[in-house]
Amino acid sequence: MTPYIDQNKDRFLAELFDLLKIPSVSTDVEYQPDIKKAAAFIAHQLNEIGADKVEICQTAGNPVVYGEKIIDPKLPTVMVYGHYDVQPADPVELWDSPPFEPTIKNGNIYARGASDDKGQMYMHIKAFESMMKNNTLSCNVKFMIEGEEEIGSVNLGEFIKERKDDLSADVILISDTGMISLDTPSITIGLRGLSYMEVELTGPNRDLHSGMYGGAVQNPLNALTEVIASLKDKDGHITIPGFYEKVEVISDADRAKMAKAPFSLEAYKAALDLEKEFGEKGYSTNERTSIRPTLDVNGLWGGYTGEGAKTVIPSKAYAKISMRLVPHQTWEEISELFTKHIESIVPDGIRVKVTTHHGGMPVVIPTNSVEFEAANAAYAEAFGKEPIPVRSGGSIPIVALFKEELGLDSVMMGFGLDSDAIHSPNEKFGIANFLKGIETIELFYKHYAVLKK
Amino acid sequence: MTPYIDQNKDRFLAELFDLLKIPSVSTDVEYQPDIKKAAAFIAHQLNEIGADKVEICQTAGNPVVYGEKIIDPKLPTVMVYGHYDVQPADPVELWDSPPFEPTIKNGNIYARGASDDKGQMYMHIKAFESMMKNNTLSCNVKFMIEGEEEIGSVNLGEFIKERKDDLSADVILISDTGMISLDTPSITIGLRGLSYMEVELTGPNRDLHSGMYGGAVQNPLNALTEVIASLKDKDGHITIPGFYEKVEVISDADRAKMAKAPFSLEAYKAALDLEKEFGEKGYSTNERTSIRPTLDVNGLWGGYTGEGAKTVIPSKAYAKISMRLVPHQTWEEISELFTKHIESIVPDGIRVKVTTHHGGMPVVIPTNSVEFEAANAAYAEAFGKEPIPVRSGGSIPIVALFKEELGLDSVMMGFGLDSDAIHSPNEKFGIANFLKGIETIELFYKHYAVLKK
Repeated sequence: MTPYIDQNKDRFLAELFDLLKIPSVSTDVEYQPDIKKAAAFIAHQLNEIGADKVEICQTAGNPVVYGEKIIDPKLPTVMVYGHYDVQPADPVELWDSPPFEPTIKNGNIYARGASDDKGQMYMHIKAFESMMKNNTLSCNVKFMIEGEEEIGSVNLGEFIKERKDDLSADVILISDTGMISLDTPSITIGLRGLSYMEVELTGPNRDLHSGMYGGAVQNPLNALTEVIASLKDKDGHITIPGFYEKVEVISDADRAKMAKAPFSLEAYKAALDLEKEFGEKGYSTNERTSIRPTLDVNGLWGGYTGEGAKTVIPSKAYAKISMRLVPHQTWEEISELFTKHIESIVPDGIRVKVTTHHGGMPVVIPTNSVEFEAANAAYAEAFGKEPIPVRSGGSIPIVALFKEELGLDSVMMGFGLDSDAIHSPNEKFGIANFLKGIETIELFYKHYAVLKK
Repeated sequence: MTPYIDQNKDRFLAELFDLLKIPSVSTDVEYQPDIKKAAAFIAHQLNEIGADKVEICQTAGNPVVYGEKIIDPKLPTVMVYGHYDVQPADPVELWDSPPFEPTIKNGNIYARGASDDKGQMYMHIKAFESMMKNNTLSCNVKFMIEGEEEIGSVNLGEFIKERKDDLSADVILISDTGMISLDTPSITIGLRGLSYMEVELTGPNRDLHSGMYGGAVQNPLNALTEVIASLKDKDGHITIPGFYEKVEVISDADRAKMAKAPFSLEAYKAALDLEKEFGEKGYSTNERTSIRPTLDVNGLWGGYTGEGAKTVIPSKAYAKISMRLVPHQTWEEISELFTKHIESIVPDGIRVKVTTHHGGMPVVIPTNSVEFEAANAAYAEAFGKEPIPVRSGGSIPIVALFKEELGLDSVMMGFGLDSDAIHSPNEKFGIANFLKGIETIELFYKHYAVLKK
């Protein structure tokens, strides 16, 4: 740890706690005031540290916070991307401490957004502060911190198109992923895409008494289970026609290389209380979460879900279903295949409506670039060992957009752990990860400036 | 209509409205105060009219209201059974008028409980009043109005055992079923039984990020759809081993007789906005809802069900599933078969918990009895035509208990219509049905007293 980080770490944490206390949930409109508060907090911090042109940029949705420090136009420019919005905290009753009252336990910060992404995004702001205060900033910096990542960055594409000129840079730097462990650093070189759908089935035009009508009408809840159950076969293959058509084929050599990453299936199952793992036949657990696409029900509801019993056949049944995609699949095409297929398999007597919530493209990052080399050197220096390149199962839709719109590759220096429980109750982020992240980010600037010359 | 009913009908309705305004929902503890209010209302009414020994009898659950009028021990005794509790009103947003603010539209009373069972139960209280005021009461009467019918009459069995002596009678009279129409009166001679179950599946020990874990762990929501979908085959047969073993076999002759009841499948589908009916292969719509058992999902929930999208693999998934039973099936046995089967088909990596909410036995009423003859004569006189004997798809668990504990058969003189939407939004009861019911009930007493001699 650098002296500066060591001397200021308590203040760094106090500031992060203030940010974590703002319930800036983007999936639910009722948190709009908190979205604005979180954006204002980031803008204030950037100003304090000495960023220029700090602006809370309005969009059709939640604002993007922009700020920059151009120390010399001849130097390379790093653009930091992150997000200040968070996932909903529910089910709140499963949290051991209130999701928006950051709590420290066993060296971890427990709060919604601690790891995804407030904690990780804030490392970049503090690394910037450290370099400014110590006059070690070796590159120009631009910050682009958005508020809609958890709802698919629906308005960032438009923002980037409008601001193309302001957003010129040499590389995008993102900390919104994870690493294997503090002992085994890793860099994310791949992300899965995402297609998030909602299905609404309608049977009878009103809720019915299950005694008077049971057996004579199609029950949309029963129908929904049939429709969803049919989407996977007994080997865990997804049955949507054309779903696998464009899936990237990975060579056995590459699969063997990936298999070298340290992993204990027993520890994995134990951590989740699982007697048995599950997944597509013919692939390992790590492959199932990285190089293979998936289909998961994220939400299911209909009928009477309260206390006790109600003998009803509901008029409607609902499901939220998302698919993770791998290179060469496009989310628009998959969403369309999904919609067509669902419409084709819905049983008689049921009407169906399929809606696309949002999507994102899968990405793979080249490992032979200057920026990757710089990141590699930064980890090696900070951790004392070379990082392992890994593909993450998660999605950051914006990464593909950066490449497409700005022609920029991204470096994903994530410092979270799988056990951080992002999107779950009791989300956490290790204080050690937070501080190590700041240190490693500073080293990235150092090496990047040199290698980019 | 008798002169007395005609002169007092506005007051009858006003009183019923006061009862309907009480949200006496038994499935949800938060309505306990209203349960007590509804019981007190019934007790007050019985007192007003001149019933003796009126008592609000405490049980382990909701109270039973008792009252009697013994005019002559030598005369036959009719015991009226009904219930003052109602189903939940949700989904409340689908009601055209507030569920607990009775509203008259096109000759119908719209309110939760209008038909099931406050409106129908109240016909008996007003018929009693009419006979008392006109000195035409020709039998002894006992009232037993409970508050747990919608949760399986869980404490009534105990109550009956304790009060066996007070509850001696010759017949049970119930209005908690329907008729074909005002032009085509019918008497219910059969009821299906009920087995109401709840299934809880647990996958990982916490909610997981669907990107990080998707594809590598069994998702309890996906698993739940597989489990439920497998409970019926493509012909609509229930696949639980032993489920049909004891089902009563109906002769072709009897099926032909039942098929004579007036029924329009087109009108049935049109009323529910259904393109196509659905059900067990080899049976008509009326048979599917009367002589055949069923399995319906009544509630399904898990994961994120709020606005927008949340990419979560939940730890738990839930379903409420009920089965309607036919003669010779017993609900205890079916509940056990269901539990065993579910436990046996749950996929690897998922833990399961199956709970029995409640159950009820199916019943068939003999049509060669004095009480049936009396009911038949009452309908014939009131409606000018013979009623058609029909089997209802609904369940009144208590009817089997009356036979078992008190040795009494029940006569089910129901005046509701299928279109009353009981258990649904916009439940209604026709004012004409209400008044015709009072008239017909009075006639039952007249004929029963004569025939029983």
